[in-house]
Amino acid sequence: MPSIFTKIINGEIPCYKIAEDDDNFAFLDINPNAKGHTLCVPKKEVDKLLDMDEASYTKLMEFSRKVGKAIEAAVPCQRVGMTVIGLEVPHVHVHLIPLHSMKNATFQHKESLTAEEFEIVAEQIREQLK
Amino acid sequence: MPSIFTKIINGEIPCYKIAEDDDNFAFLDINPNAKGHTLCVPKKEVDKLLDMDEASYTKLMEFSRKVGKAIEAAVPCQRVGMTVIGLEVPHVHVHLIPLHSMKNATFQHKESLTAEEFEIVAEQIREQLK
Repeated sequence: MPSIFTKIINGEIPCYKIAEDDDNFAFLDINPNAKGHTLCVPKKEVDKLLDMDEASYTKLMEFSRKVGKAIEAAVPCQRVGMTVIGLEVPHVHVHLIPLHSMKNATFQHKESLTAEEFEIVAEQIREQLK
Repeated sequence: MPSIFTKIINGEIPCYKIAEDDDNFAFLDINPNAKGHTLCVPKKEVDKLLDMDEASYTKLMEFSRKVGKAIEAAVPCQRVGMTVIGLEVPHVHVHLIPLHSMKNATFQHKESLTAEEFEIVAEQIREQLK
């Protein structure tokens, strides 16, 4: 069965899309640690980051770097953090999180955004990728 | 002033060393989220991950992949997580953390190890890198 992220990539589940290339796809996390929290996901489903082949891993990390720099330019924050955990959805995803304090890095505190707020921050990040 | 990590890399502060190449250095975190928690640090001091030039970033990520796979082989765990935060020490460091549950990913729970336990797990990880 395709993962929830594959369904998002295929357009079967809506998302606030940030970027896409041949191998990877980025969209806003709808249960964010902070406004602008984005997930970068390889289109090919692999469960664990370290099981990805070297070329796919490097492409995902390069893609995450570009998206992360756009988030850092678009969203006021101390810096953008990067986290890969993967205990819940068995499809590799890189969390890119605007950090204001350690609180945003713990996954214990979530922020509520309206649909309009999600759309605005997505557009601000996309603008930096142009 | 050199960062605490530069002092570790230069041997001015002792560490449980895991690996080293021309550009990067890995050692055990002495305040670990879980046994085997390792830091991968570029020898050149840069504060923020996303400020690293593309080549240095890619080398750090490749180095972290190799060290992470060795940790995954050496330390029983569900998987090895990867996190870059950087709000405390202004010198890029990639956390590689053996995850047993989400608890190990939150940085809210720390594990106490004896010097002997640190040395044993360091040797087990180094063994996988041979």
